[in-house]
Amino acid sequence: MMTGAERVIIREVGLRDGLQALPAIMATDDKRAWCTAAAEAGFAEIEMTSLVPPGYMPQFADAADVITHVKTLPDVTGSALVPNLRGAERAAQLGVAKITFIVSASESFNQANVRRSRRHSIGELERIVALRDSRPTAQRFQVVGGISSAFGCSIEGQVDIAAVVRLAGTLLEIGVDELAVADTVGYGDPAAVRRMLTALLPLAGAVPVSAHFHDTRGTGMANVLAALDHGLRRFDASLGGLGGCPNAPGATGNIATEDLVYLLEAMGFDTGIDIDRVIELCRKIAARLPAAAMSGHLAQAGLPAGWTARARPGPRR
Amino acid sequence: MMTGAERVIIREVGLRDGLQALPAIMATDDKRAWCTAAAEAGFAEIEMTSLVPPGYMPQFADAADVITHVKTLPDVTGSALVPNLRGAERAAQLGVAKITFIVSASESFNQANVRRSRRHSIGELERIVALRDSRPTAQRFQVVGGISSAFGCSIEGQVDIAAVVRLAGTLLEIGVDELAVADTVGYGDPAAVRRMLTALLPLAGAVPVSAHFHDTRGTGMANVLAALDHGLRRFDASLGGLGGCPNAPGATGNIATEDLVYLLEAMGFDTGIDIDRVIELCRKIAARLPAAAMSGHLAQAGLPAGWTARARPGPRR
Repeated sequence: MMTGAERVIIREVGLRDGLQALPAIMATDDKRAWCTAAAEAGFAEIEMTSLVPPGYMPQFADAADVITHVKTLPDVTGSALVPNLRGAERAAQLGVAKITFIVSASESFNQANVRRSRRHSIGELERIVALRDSRPTAQRFQVVGGISSAFGCSIEGQVDIAAVVRLAGTLLEIGVDELAVADTVGYGDPAAVRRMLTALLPLAGAVPVSAHFHDTRGTGMANVLAALDHGLRRFDASLGGLGGCPNAPGATGNIATEDLVYLLEAMGFDTGIDIDRVIELCRKIAARLPAAAMSGHLAQAGLPAGWTARARPGPRR
Repeated sequence: MMTGAERVIIREVGLRDGLQALPAIMATDDKRAWCTAAAEAGFAEIEMTSLVPPGYMPQFADAADVITHVKTLPDVTGSALVPNLRGAERAAQLGVAKITFIVSASESFNQANVRRSRRHSIGELERIVALRDSRPTAQRFQVVGGISSAFGCSIEGQVDIAAVVRLAGTLLEIGVDELAVADTVGYGDPAAVRRMLTALLPLAGAVPVSAHFHDTRGTGMANVLAALDHGLRRFDASLGGLGGCPNAPGATGNIATEDLVYLLEAMGFDTGIDIDRVIELCRKIAARLPAAAMSGHLAQAGLPAGWTARARPGPRR
């Protein structure tokens, strides 16, 4: 199956960003089965859960069980979202390989999301990075610094791109291992993505930058294309487009993992992911969820006639 | 409202391609109201109906009524799909300004769609163009030559891009006024769009080229972006993403007009269309149709907080 095609890494965030938006709590066994199937399908990275204080989000009360399970799976990096240093400490104790900590581009959104000022959040990120650096090399976790509402916020509206780029610079100075730019409420468009990345990528240097797009207003895949054109090779996506944001009314879903795998493989990129298995997983998870919770296209339409993954004619882009 | 932004023309095809896929017949009054609202919202072009033989498609039995109504609306060009010369003659009698005639890139699809060989269809297009040229200048209709299944076909699978480009060359030689490239079954991806347009646009010269994308596998808007980057400025779209193709199982919908208006205006293009009116129209039409017939995003999510059309920061590209 090796073709020399360029690799794009998709981080499956359905178990965290997807389930977070659903009122129904998914059984821990179903979450474990989802992780196993995702690893078998070839996903290199899964955002497993959120290490919020116990009781705060019942959906993630089983965080330790899911994390423990993912550690048994080969060739997959499990990441967890943490809201603060305490979450990072818990992640470290549980042996999580990668943790994501979010600062919002919008002060109001940061307050709504974690009830803290951005200044406090930045301080917390410094303490998390210090925790990382205090650990023996073999036990060191990676830190993803995420910027939420990077393309706008449902409270403040437009967000100034220059301010986002300054915030990115701060996160990079603190020493994050990956910078994640998130269009939490689906306000981004390809022109904004281009303006943002033109300013942001030179700052990032060798630090990988990932994008987290929501398809709330139908621009998700066009935003991916704009980011690909800028050389981005890491994307978050959620199986079936599950997700949204509890603090952003009408923000109805991440870009769908299966549609992203299809887009990338059709364009000649190598996701390392078996698209047939993703479609199968999609249908299995849909059966565990309320009707119409999933909004992706591919599982409904199926693959094109005569499709053979990565045997599509080049050149890519 | 003039901003000097570059104009992109959206042709609303919901009344034809959208309704064609629905079993329920929309009342003629509702169609008329749709046309009026679209004209008031600023659409420059509406595909009104299909001039198939009476009785063949009950949805279009009221073609003459809809055409007569659109002729009373200011500043809007009404187009009609015709399956053959006879349809073109009827269109001419009814005073239709623009007619669309389709040849498929796939022989099998052409047979399934109009029960004729491509060779026969090309001959029919020659006769339609001759009919156009035989008319007094003031009564001359425009001919759009469409290539369906241009990115693949649910019967034959992959379609050879070089063959599509040759077919486009034939249509241009015959003398079409506009060339329309249609991804009838949603097999296109941005890399294929780029390969296609790289080869096709130099042939077209001054003849406008339009693109007709379906979002069947979630690539529709990314395909639009790829085409925009190549300089295309004409797109078909269907209100609420209505549509599909009766001969293409699983082909579930055109790109949604309201999402396309949003994408373009957000990027700084000028569609000439009032986005609030489009959202309103979307909700009105949805109320006339079976539940879940419409799949667009914007009408559900609403505009971003603080949105002001065409007051978004530049630059476009």
